[in-house]
Amino acid sequence: MFYHDGGKLQYHVKVDKPNPVFAKALQQAIGGIQGEIRVCLQYMFQAWGARGPKKYRDMLLETGTEEMGHIEMLATAVALNLEGAPLEQEKAANDPIMLATMGGMNVQHAISTCMAAMPVDASGVPFNCSHVYASGNVAADMLANVMAESTGRMLAVQLYKMTDDKGMKDMLSFLIARDTMHQNQFLAAWEELGGSDNHPIPNNFDQSLEPGGYNYTFYTTGKDDSVPQPTGRWSSGTSFDGKGEFKQEKMVPVGGIPDLGMASPKAAVQKGQEGMIDKLKDKI
Amino acid sequence: MFYHDGGKLQYHVKVDKPNPVFAKALQQAIGGIQGEIRVCLQYMFQAWGARGPKKYRDMLLETGTEEMGHIEMLATAVALNLEGAPLEQEKAANDPIMLATMGGMNVQHAISTCMAAMPVDASGVPFNCSHVYASGNVAADMLANVMAESTGRMLAVQLYKMTDDKGMKDMLSFLIARDTMHQNQFLAAWEELGGSDNHPIPNNFDQSLEPGGYNYTFYTTGKDDSVPQPTGRWSSGTSFDGKGEFKQEKMVPVGGIPDLGMASPKAAVQKGQEGMIDKLKDKI
Amino acid sequence: MFYHDGGKLQYHVKVDKPNPVFAKALQQAIGGIQGEIRVCLQYMFQAWGARGPKKYRDMLLETGTEEMGHIEMLATAVALNLEGAPLEQEKAANDPIMLATMGGMNVQHAISTCMAAMPVDASGVPFNCSHVYASGNVAADMLANVMAESTGRMLAVQLYKMTDDKGMKDMLSFLIARDTMHQNQFLAAWEELGGSDNHPIPNNFDQSLEPGGYNYTFYTTGKDDSVPQPTGRWSSGTSFDGKGEFKQEKMVPVGGIPDLGMASPKAAVQKGQEGMIDKLKDKI
Amino acid sequence: MFYHDGGKLQYHVKVDKPNPVFAKALQQAIGGIQGEIRVCLQYMFQAWGARGPKKYRDMLLETGTEEMGHIEMLATAVALNLEGAPLEQEKAANDPIMLATMGGMNVQHAISTCMAAMPVDASGVPFNCSHVYASGNVAADMLANVMAESTGRMLAVQLYKMTDDKGMKDMLSFLIARDTMHQNQFLAAWEELGGSDNHPIPNNFDQSLEPGGYNYTFYTTGKDDSVPQPTGRWSSGTSFDGKGEFKQEKMVPVGGIPDLGMASPKAAVQKGQEGMIDKLKDKI
Amino acid sequence: MFYHDGGKLQYHVKVDKPNPVFAKALQQAIGGIQGEIRVCLQYMFQAWGARGPKKYRDMLLETGTEEMGHIEMLATAVALNLEGAPLEQEKAANDPIMLATMGGMNVQHAISTCMAAMPVDASGVPFNCSHVYASGNVAADMLANVMAESTGRMLAVQLYKMTDDKGMKDMLSFLIARDTMHQNQFLAAWEELGGSDNHPIPNNFDQSLEPGGYNYTFYTTGKDDSVPQPTGRWSSGTSFDGKGEFKQEKMVPVGGIPDLGMASPKAAVQKGQEGMIDKLKDKI
Amino acid sequence: MFYHDGGKLQYHVKVDKPNPVFAKALQQAIGGIQGEIRVCLQYMFQAWGARGPKKYRDMLLETGTEEMGHIEMLATAVALNLEGAPLEQEKAANDPIMLATMGGMNVQHAISTCMAAMPVDASGVPFNCSHVYASGNVAADMLANVMAESTGRMLAVQLYKMTDDKGMKDMLSFLIARDTMHQNQFLAAWEELGGSDNHPIPNNFDQSLEPGGYNYTFYTTGKDDSVPQPTGRWSSGTSFDGKGEFKQEKMVPVGGIPDLGMASPKAAVQKGQEGMIDKLKDKI
Repeated sequence: MFYHDGGKLQYHVKVDKPNPVFAKALQQAIGGIQGEIRVCLQYMFQAWGARGPKKYRDMLLETGTEEMGHIEMLATAVALNLEGAPLEQEKAANDPIMLATMGGMNVQHAISTCMAAMPVDASGVPFNCSHVYASGNVAADMLANVMAESTGRMLAVQLYKMTDDKGMKDMLSFLIARDTMHQNQFLAAWEELGGSDNHPIPNNFDQSLEPGGYNYTFYTTGKDDSVPQPTGRWSSGTSFDGKGEFKQEKMVPVGGIPDLGMASPKAAVQKGQEGMIDKLKDKI
Repeated sequence: MFYHDGGKLQYHVKVDKPNPVFAKALQQAIGGIQGEIRVCLQYMFQAWGARGPKKYRDMLLETGTEEMGHIEMLATAVALNLEGAPLEQEKAANDPIMLATMGGMNVQHAISTCMAAMPVDASGVPFNCSHVYASGNVAADMLANVMAESTGRMLAVQLYKMTDDKGMKDMLSFLIARDTMHQNQFLAAWEELGGSDNHPIPNNFDQSLEPGGYNYTFYTTGKDDSVPQPTGRWSSGTSFDGKGEFKQEKMVPVGGIPDLGMASPKAAVQKGQEGMIDKLKDKI
Repeated sequence: MFYHDGGKLQYHVKVDKPNPVFAKALQQAIGGIQGEIRVCLQYMFQAWGARGPKKYRDMLLETGTEEMGHIEMLATAVALNLEGAPLEQEKAANDPIMLATMGGMNVQHAISTCMAAMPVDASGVPFNCSHVYASGNVAADMLANVMAESTGRMLAVQLYKMTDDKGMKDMLSFLIARDTMHQNQFLAAWEELGGSDNHPIPNNFDQSLEPGGYNYTFYTTGKDDSVPQPTGRWSSGTSFDGKGEFKQEKMVPVGGIPDLGMASPKAAVQKGQEGMIDKLKDKI
Repeated sequence: MFYHDGGKLQYHVKVDKPNPVFAKALQQAIGGIQGEIRVCLQYMFQAWGARGPKKYRDMLLETGTEEMGHIEMLATAVALNLEGAPLEQEKAANDPIMLATMGGMNVQHAISTCMAAMPVDASGVPFNCSHVYASGNVAADMLANVMAESTGRMLAVQLYKMTDDKGMKDMLSFLIARDTMHQNQFLAAWEELGGSDNHPIPNNFDQSLEPGGYNYTFYTTGKDDSVPQPTGRWSSGTSFDGKGEFKQEKMVPVGGIPDLGMASPKAAVQKGQEGMIDKLKDKI
Repeated sequence: MFYHDGGKLQYHVKVDKPNPVFAKALQQAIGGIQGEIRVCLQYMFQAWGARGPKKYRDMLLETGTEEMGHIEMLATAVALNLEGAPLEQEKAANDPIMLATMGGMNVQHAISTCMAAMPVDASGVPFNCSHVYASGNVAADMLANVMAESTGRMLAVQLYKMTDDKGMKDMLSFLIARDTMHQNQFLAAWEELGGSDNHPIPNNFDQSLEPGGYNYTFYTTGKDDSVPQPTGRWSSGTSFDGKGEFKQEKMVPVGGIPDLGMASPKAAVQKGQEGMIDKLKDKI
Repeated sequence: MFYHDGGKLQYHVKVDKPNPVFAKALQQAIGGIQGEIRVCLQYMFQAWGARGPKKYRDMLLETGTEEMGHIEMLATAVALNLEGAPLEQEKAANDPIMLATMGGMNVQHAISTCMAAMPVDASGVPFNCSHVYASGNVAADMLANVMAESTGRMLAVQLYKMTDDKGMKDMLSFLIARDTMHQNQFLAAWEELGGSDNHPIPNNFDQSLEPGGYNYTFYTTGKDDSVPQPTGRWSSGTSFDGKGEFKQEKMVPVGGIPDLGMASPKAAVQKGQEGMIDKLKDKI
């Protein structure tokens, strides 16, 4: 069960110079794939479906709840940036700066929400909950979260650079700091769970069932010897998981050419697909 | 530029007992969020947008090309599992096993594709390219790839357990092995790029701009002291990135209650929202 | 800012006989268009964007927070219904009831989430946040909420009838009761805001700008007199909003046939679309 | 079965000064969630699935057919607004007004449709038919329609304010007037069906099965006594549906903490999730 | 403007033995990518955006209006097939045929629509209007329509084979016949517009701007000489459009390897991407 | 199995004057419905599911592989056009040209990808794989491909006109040339397969089962005699497929008005829908 604080914000959200074009960009942090709706629901669904050690469920619940408050902050920031946005054509017609503003803002902020945030990204695409990665495997989930926080922090950093509004810079620096912590937090959990021993995920599958040779070889797929072979930490030496030795080889097909045969006469195909008709037979 | 091998498969794809219900499940490995279309396009877009050290671009291109061949294998497997699937109602009407098969298969395999694979997941939802995570940050991309390969391997493992078809088990064991390698490969790259030094991603932002205290504190959001505080590796000690000390605190709001004020009379709101009308004023 | 209660559930969630087919149906109450993610985010976004009387913002925040707890309950119910679900083909092959169960469950519960809930509907389609209706007009929002709670209660009622599990019936009766209250709550708010005086929404547009005759006439569009004209409360008498008199008429077009003319030669059209070419001119 | 009128428009559609930026905004009225495709298909699907009194089916068919003509009008308006839109870069390069126009228009109007309307919203997101709300419950459907017409009228009002084109203002005033009628029409139908007696929807479920106390109580979810309790018409007095007495209480969890236990060894989890492994046991 | 016929159906829609599993399959013909919503809206949007000879606009309007009536027929067929569908778990529990039926039907027909059709496909995925292909080029549109009618007829044929219900077979034979006509109709229009002279579409672009050699050569992309070269009508002889000579060659890259260089320090990348840092330099 | 060429591009990709607004438009050629991801995956899935004559499978594989290289070229072009794009607000504030550029570019290129391409269209909508048309019928697939190449060439032509960058014009002229070939190639295959004899697709259904009269008649749906009847090649003469005679008639409904009856009391409807209740009976 959840509680609120009467709308009190986790951190300061001030806007000195409302900017509807920046409001559009901020939407990415709400409804983008790196945004706060995603991490909020992701940590929640991971928690609600967690089986095994209870502490990870609890930790996810803590941070999922924090993220709900980040959506609240950003939705407030969008609404404040939309104050006074241009809504009327006639005034804009001959003013290139106002015209550029009208063109650069998300027009739905004016015509669909009376100047408020939407659960969409910076292009106006609604958030799709398929991005809530909750696999049921605690190590995989920790990595999914590190990844979400990494791209989330990248986004906040770019938004920080994009604005010269003091209040917005302050709010974004807070979100950047939280993303710093959350990256560390989920990496620390991954480490606690075993670090490199977590891999290959899932680690409860009997690796002796993996066909020998395929599981620690970096295959290259260059068309022939004219293509250079990139080497790196992945090419040789002990594998990251410590369970094999890296090697590098050129991939060759061993599976042959599949033959699906002719089509069933029950399927809605052309006559020639079911069995050669005479007319076609001559041509093919 | 790319080349093919006349349809030769990377690895064996045999189906001993076609099973249209298993064909539906296999679709997840083609068009699911953990599937092969996703990783193929993800590594390709990461490569095509890569700036900086060329070796990561090259490595991504190798594996992205390999993954295209995995889609090919799985599409072949789906088509082979659909051989002889029940298409006609009358025969199924009184046979519960055939009826269950018709109910359990993806009916679009019968009515939309003449018994072939589609770029959809196991529920029939088409793959949506928003799942192609390509951030432009090489470390973030490596983690996104580890995550994709982790859930991809989980999926292949579950499909392996779900079937008793010898050919399908063989094919899936190959895919599991490749996922083992790819997890190791991207983790090795992450390590080579700096490991914990990669964090916080992006590591080219000046951390002194992060407000002090917020960036290495695990905040708990329990409603009051009745809620236990989960502790772990993330609660104390040096942070994973080595740039701070973890601590744990209860979060309190510092941002106050936002006030968006009354609505603009230019917006399509109710009269009471623009400024209290008398009738409403008495009630509120 | 938000808080949690250590995972304590608002109401009892017990499952006596786990049923993976019912778990699939329950998903509609989580990620369906009538589901709890929708109402949770809808009330939150309405609150965060609310301008005008503060009490509606506050009320929305109360109930939005409650709904987050309903997602939690339902996600728990799904996970509990998946206990012991069949994952292995060989056992099912000859048992029609187990086969029907495998066919009728959402296979992603087995292969994608390790037996946990997803933010998807009963067909496996992920929730899309375009269904978060938050218009910025307080009266329109109240109606959107009544509508959401009406279809939400319909859904809970059908799920109640579909199961014979005592624990599930208990949980669903709680959710039905809450939907009863929420319908009443948003209708009461609509009434307090003015009831019929709220209409036409938005009520801050000068109705004298509406062309006379069109705004209180029920137009019929039957092809000719052979089609009967349905009459009802909407056909005559004072309009619901008290601002006009209903009447009923047959609609006739007054706008003429539009002529878009020939295509611009700058557009990628056929030659004949830009201006008749001779060859075409003869035929048309 | 349906008929057309040779393309004659229901009402005048004239454009004095073509404006491709306005064409983009108009798209919201075609393919937005408040747009005409939605209401057209919504009333049609409600009619086609209607069971019970035939008059509501008939009434829905009348208005659904009218709405098809509104899509036609708006598609025409978009095409006319695109006449002469800038397609060529070189001319725009140094003219900020033309550049702003190119930036502010939907570029797909230029590159995908040869200057014609699309079934997308103002952000270019295609209409998704999940927004066709047709529940099978006649009262719920009437409310869904009032809601659609309310946000539809809000949209038309904002578009009216956004343009200074005389022809467009005329067309939009017609659409506003029709939305006035349609709000009244569906509210009148709701009233005729019983008004407050319609609730709680569905009204054919035995309310004695609802657990006492939960169905007419407004629960607040503030974290503690520091959060003020909003009161209103929903807090006390007879409920809107006349079937209970409103009261207000602070919500407390009664469901306890759920325990999903350890994961099945059949699932693709980590070893520690199946049963504590020694290494992990020490740490957790 | 449009009209209806009081709900009279274009053709007979009778269901002798309601079958909810068939209702699910029929949904593909309503909301699938080959379905009737698609063709209805496609022909309408093509008509409304048509520039050039008016007869094609008129013809499209005729058939678009006919298709609206086909949605009506199919929605009726779905509703009739859902009569008496099993809604209650307890009855199904021990009856494998009823259980298979519950598993095989679209459960949303029971829990979301009170036994009526939805604008979704056979997997329950809502129709997405991006499939409304309306390019503004009359020849391209004719081909898009032939394609839609071809897959539409394939679908109707498979549904015809899938059912043994006499009424459904009759209805489907009508739809098959109409698809026969519509394929012929749009091909006849394509022929009238010029047939092979329509190509390459658009035919108003100056082909002398196409780099020589690339526009009539079938390039093969086999990895080397081990891959056979498929030949056909496209390999030699006069091209279909009569404007070139087909030839066949092996494709070779002429564009070189692109170099995006190092990343901008303004972007949220890793330090090594902006310019080699010492630590990284040693390893790469 | 597939191979790459170390990133060598099929054709030259040079950008003389980077232009982020053009980068946004170019995205349509990557992730639009007419774009290269679509054709690449479409030809691949058609090939992988092809049954019948092997040469069509082989031919599709050749061109599908070529198209993967086109995505690569366009992704490179987008990245190059983004070089030096404005990322910082303060510099833009007073410069209308820079402001228009910021408004007109896809802001996600700056905040989500560090200046690289995404698999989205020009509006920022991610590519959805439902547009991969692969029906299993070889003739239907050839037409789907002609259609894709036609709209693809239209798009490339408009992009060509939109830019004055010499390098971009060169690249686009190559893509236009390839689309010329591909239109010809798939039309040649359609011709080889039988041309008009392919129709009606599928041509393996017994046409004697089509109800007489409906399959070669162009039905008009004008409301009455006041609507002119468009005539054309489709109105009279031998049908395109040579299997019938075209005629033209006015459509009349023969199916009667469907009656779905009262609703089941098991469904979540209103009381009046199950059987008239007294109160309602008086009004209706």
